[in-house]
Amino acid sequence: MPTPRQVYVAVIGVGGVGKCFLNQFQALRTRMSQARSPTYLDLIFVSRSKKSLFSESFRPLNLDTIEQDLNDSKQPVLEASALVEYLATAPEKVILVDNTSSLDIAQQYPAFLRKGVSIVTPNKKGFSDSFELWEDMFAAASNGSGNGGYLFHESTVGAGLPVLSSLKELVDTGDEVTKIEGVFSGTMSFLFNSFMPVGGGGGSFAAEVKKAKDLGYTEPDPRDDLNGLDVARKLTILARLAGLKIQNPTSFPVQSLIPKELESCSSGDDFMSRLPEFDDQMEKLKQEAANEGKVVRFVGSIDVASQAVKVGLEKFDASHPIAALKGSDNIINFYTKRYGSNPLIIQGAGAGGEVTAMGVTGDLLKVLRLLN
Amino acid sequence: MPTPRQVYVAVIGVGGVGKCFLNQFQALRTRMSQARSPTYLDLIFVSRSKKSLFSESFRPLNLDTIEQDLNDSKQPVLEASALVEYLATAPEKVILVDNTSSLDIAQQYPAFLRKGVSIVTPNKKGFSDSFELWEDMFAAASNGSGNGGYLFHESTVGAGLPVLSSLKELVDTGDEVTKIEGVFSGTMSFLFNSFMPVGGGGGSFAAEVKKAKDLGYTEPDPRDDLNGLDVARKLTILARLAGLKIQNPTSFPVQSLIPKELESCSSGDDFMSRLPEFDDQMEKLKQEAANEGKVVRFVGSIDVASQAVKVGLEKFDASHPIAALKGSDNIINFYTKRYGSNPLIIQGAGAGGEVTAMGVTGDLLKVLRLLN
Repeated sequence: MPTPRQVYVAVIGVGGVGKCFLNQFQALRTRMSQARSPTYLDLIFVSRSKKSLFSESFRPLNLDTIEQDLNDSKQPVLEASALVEYLATAPEKVILVDNTSSLDIAQQYPAFLRKGVSIVTPNKKGFSDSFELWEDMFAAASNGSGNGGYLFHESTVGAGLPVLSSLKELVDTGDEVTKIEGVFSGTMSFLFNSFMPVGGGGGSFAAEVKKAKDLGYTEPDPRDDLNGLDVARKLTILARLAGLKIQNPTSFPVQSLIPKELESCSSGDDFMSRLPEFDDQMEKLKQEAANEGKVVRFVGSIDVASQAVKVGLEKFDASHPIAALKGSDNIINFYTKRYGSNPLIIQGAGAGGEVTAMGVTGDLLKVLRLLN
Repeated sequence: MPTPRQVYVAVIGVGGVGKCFLNQFQALRTRMSQARSPTYLDLIFVSRSKKSLFSESFRPLNLDTIEQDLNDSKQPVLEASALVEYLATAPEKVILVDNTSSLDIAQQYPAFLRKGVSIVTPNKKGFSDSFELWEDMFAAASNGSGNGGYLFHESTVGAGLPVLSSLKELVDTGDEVTKIEGVFSGTMSFLFNSFMPVGGGGGSFAAEVKKAKDLGYTEPDPRDDLNGLDVARKLTILARLAGLKIQNPTSFPVQSLIPKELESCSSGDDFMSRLPEFDDQMEKLKQEAANEGKVVRFVGSIDVASQAVKVGLEKFDASHPIAALKGSDNIINFYTKRYGSNPLIIQGAGAGGEVTAMGVTGDLLKVLRLLN
């Protein structure tokens, strides 16, 4: 019989992804208990903007009432640096689940890791910020070159799709990744699959952006998707894992779909009301592609040998897997020496609370296996 | 600084996959050494049919001369049970790499595992044999319910494609897998992509089988592919990982493409010479599908709820991802509750020495991370 052990979990952020994660976490505990797992997982800290819930003595929190208890809590949120100090004093191993999109918290990852706290997160910010922060994190992590906590971030690219783990395995087993290309944004996927479906049809660009917004596929302000920065952040992470020293997500060409003339719009609503003025430009692009028997898609690509990373619109043959994408699916093509002319392809939903949380839960399980 | 440690590796089988594995293993050792890894990997045993090479004192073998040294060796091959005893006495942790397709060796996996030997292998035989052997293996393995060695077999389905690890993560994180469907044989993929490409064309069935054989895409005797058993073995493994208690690969419907009248052929050559007699039947099938705007593909599917597993020919719309497959690629679609109507898709080369060995090398790295 293996020795019983307790592992503490601390969760920051209980919004869309955070709520799904807590449900998956509770179900995981139930399955582990039913399987008589020798590992006991306890939630000992939870926080959301302005509120937190924890005890100095690391008393396990009640998952059944966690939402209400956090609502009722009078404890203010801990600054990231104070949270480092708190978790560092825990009598058991700790896994921090960062469900925020905060750079402030990510900047403390090296400090958490050096104190032995492991981190699993869908938060892209830290991994796509300065290369210095990237190096600092992986110099501290046990699955980097250090001997601190473990660090996993599968859901930062393609949500729960096995994108980063697959790329790492290609690199770690000595394959030569030559090119990575794909559709990395569920929003952009939905938008262009609607704007220019294979076989014709689709409304005006502004109308399709409005439809995507109304259906909840875009950020509250659609400019946060259309500026291409979300995709640029994901490409930064992939390129770094492929061995390129990308300084930051603005150090390579990123095409913004926000027309120059609308960059000064004061609000998202103002922007949306003026977007139809530029429908002719997008229609022209669509027509040009159609004349070549192609469709337009918003893609990211990394050419590893020439270190060329770029994000923007490209034309694809109607028969290309990127053209045939459905709904808001992501597709990622890894071209490598071993796979030859036909890439390794991973495709499926790359956004949404449940699948994003699944990537986080999967990372949590990886850490549990490694924390012997 | 982590403490230095030595890990022993024993390799059975140095054929197509085995040779690629040894090259990848040697390159891995070099990279680890350059990265000043505290782990020292040493090959202490290698064998092929009728020959083996090892010392009673576990002296590391010289990888640079391994092929010649094994050729020159006068040591007979160890029976699997004798190998268990030998490796059990090793003073360091041992990882056994079984590159054979032998059931005899696989039947000793539980014994190896109970002695603390970890196993990584592309050998399908044991995992698709009796359910009893499956249970016995995972009752012994540390990544099952036991506390022996670790057991990984990614390359038993889809070669190096991340098929089994992805399925395990879906299950482990609590997603509900409803259906698995795909093309699981590089040979069958090549054969039907040539026989009935999307858009028309393709030669007679017998001619395409001959072409596939001449290009080395089939087993030496093509009947070993056409009987569907290879795909049935892979489906058995996937269904078991999805939670179904499949007794063996003949306990569900498997369509053989060997015509009844040719089942008694005495040799592969005899079979090949008579196969053209049945071209009309296959041509009729092709025509029927074409009339519906579809193509014929040889697929496997698992309906988890109804526990229905089957292998055989099915028709797909020309626009379906399974129809659009290229060359000898595999495609695997996981339909799950979290992924909804659009499946998680993994696609790429599912056969070949380098990509199969890559799955084995990847599994070796997983074991190294877990062997703390």
